[in-house]
Amino acid sequence: TPETHNDRLFSYSNDHSTPLPPKFDHLHAHSLQVYPTTAGKTVSALQGQFQQMLMRLTKPKSVLELGTFMGYSAMAMADGMPKGGVIYTCEKDPKAARLSRELFEEHAYSPSTTGKEVKRKDATIEVVEGDGMASLAVLAKRNLRFDAVFLDADKGNYVNYYNFILDNDMLTDEGYILADNVLFSGLVLNSEQRKRDAAAASASSSSSSASSSTTTAFSKGKGKKGKNGEAWGGDTFQKFADHIDTFNKHVRSDPRVDVVLLPAFDGLSLIMKKRQ
Amino acid sequence: TPETHNDRLFSYSNDHSTPLPPKFDHLHAHSLQVYPTTAGKTVSALQGQFQQMLMRLTKPKSVLELGTFMGYSAMAMADGMPKGGVIYTCEKDPKAARLSRELFEEHAYSPSTTGKEVKRKDATIEVVEGDGMASLAVLAKRNLRFDAVFLDADKGNYVNYYNFILDNDMLTDEGYILADNVLFSGLVLNSEQRKRDAAAASASSSSSSASSSTTTAFSKGKGKKGKNGEAWGGDTFQKFADHIDTFNKHVRSDPRVDVVLLPAFDGLSLIMKKRQ
Ligand SMILES: C[S@@+](CC[C@H](N)C(=O)[O-])C[C@H]1O[C@@H](n2cnc3c(N)ncnc32)[C@H](O)[C@@H]1O
Ligand SMILES: C[S@@+](CC[C@H](N)C(=O)[O-])C[C@H]1O[C@@H](n2cnc3c(N)ncnc32)[C@H](O)[C@@H]1O
Repeated sequence: TPETHNDRLFSYSNDHSTPLPPKFDHLHAHSLQVYPTTAGKTVSALQGQFQQMLMRLTKPKSVLELGTFMGYSAMAMADGMPKGGVIYTCEKDPKAARLSRELFEEHAYSPSTTGKEVKRKDATIEVVEGDGMASLAVLAKRNLRFDAVFLDADKGNYVNYYNFILDNDMLTDEGYILADNVLFSGLVLNSEQRKRDAAAASASSSSSSASSSTTTAFSKGKGKKGKNGEAWGGDTFQKFADHIDTFNKHVRSDPRVDVVLLPAFDGLSLIMKKRQ
Repeated sequence: TPETHNDRLFSYSNDHSTPLPPKFDHLHAHSLQVYPTTAGKTVSALQGQFQQMLMRLTKPKSVLELGTFMGYSAMAMADGMPKGGVIYTCEKDPKAARLSRELFEEHAYSPSTTGKEVKRKDATIEVVEGDGMASLAVLAKRNLRFDAVFLDADKGNYVNYYNFILDNDMLTDEGYILADNVLFSGLVLNSEQRKRDAAAASASSSSSSASSSTTTAFSKGKGKKGKNGEAWGGDTFQKFADHIDTFNKHVRSDPRVDVVLLPAFDGLSLIMKKRQ
């Protein structure tokens, strides 16, 4: 596939940014070995660098992550956190939970159970294994609150995660939520069109007013693979985008928060409580 | 001109973000009246929203801006700053300096000289009129240091502003610099190519090895206008991009700092001092 203008701007941006240390490249390579078809789920190196800088800029003491995968984003964030910081990261896949836990031990983000001596990092990472909603309930019972939340698990549950966190007062007053993939490869544009089409079709009983949805370069079913290796046809993929579009509209109309949808990477929303 | 995919993603992002209050739209409209050909120099509404949220996330007490223009970005940032915060903003154009000063008074970002009573904002804005480098020298003499710096004045001086600020210890230890337009409509890609071509041409005395520079949609001299209304041909415009490319390489290779070039808007670099 030929490199697009956006690809070249991304490479340029990457080349003019301070790289993360080599262990992060190794982790990307390792993920590709363990999950050959789905390793791309991890954030890019440049996004990891951005999230690390965001940590340095905002100094959260307590961070929640939904979606650990192999621990790349967690480690990138941890290295930017202040001394004594903790990341709680939730993962449903038992294999990913186990492997990331091992990596966090090996790289000294958690107390060693192997007796191997390593200099402890400033921040600690705790993996919470299980379904994200169940894990949130457990964390709420422990009365934990978070200065920063990174939403990066199953897209269909973004609204549920978001509501649970706000309804249960798990976000500190000056805390923020960062939600990943909120442009979903551009497919959210199709979601809007589909919703307009559906509304038009139900308004007029003559179905001729329903136009076909916008086709983007991304919507042509490039044969992306899902977590368990199942092929993501255009339609499965589009359904995730529809969930994301619903999430974006939900947040935008929620009177409790302010949101900025940053058109960078695959779309990153920054969400904070409105000021009193 | 037809809307590109990027344009549509930008609109979508804008539509799903909390807008700034109406006075900001009025200011955009007002700028267009006063500077019909150059009003586009101001940051977009969405970027203003992002910068305001960045202020809320990082809580700088003292901010430096290079390039006030009509005060849009300064006001957007000020509204996100903590109580007692101050923005020092430098502007060379006497008309822009006067008009922005009037606007800051009118909107209560500075003490009123007209006696009109308005509720004072949390943060104050002070306009420093004159050439940016001269203004930096004045601010250094006043022993001012900054928790955040927004670089948005003449692109040819970015390296000078940056060096002066770091060399004179004007950035606090955990402070950051945000540099705007570091992708310069994508033209930095041409700059790299031109530099490679020049190197190749001087390496081999046969000039046949010099390929023509990459042509992007942006480099075709769309007739952009400079500050004083002069037409910016492709080449004038490209020279600014070359300066920006030099800046990006200078920062990336400066051992004092870490940098993340965020591929959003026209390119935004986040720069912090390396941790000890
Ligand atoms: C996009 S990946 C996370 C990537 C990771 N944040 C990184 O950048 O390195 C999403 C992860 O969420 C996990 N996940 C999917 N559904 C989940 C659920 N219901 N609860 C918790 N985790 C889930 C997947 O197993 C996958 O590892
Ligand atoms: C891109 S505009 C700033 C826009 C503003 N930050 C905003 O977003 O609303 C750049 C401004 O820098 C000013 N400028 C240009 N050269 C300058 C110099 N040498 N010193 C100070 N200001 C300069 C221009 O007059 C112009 O108003």
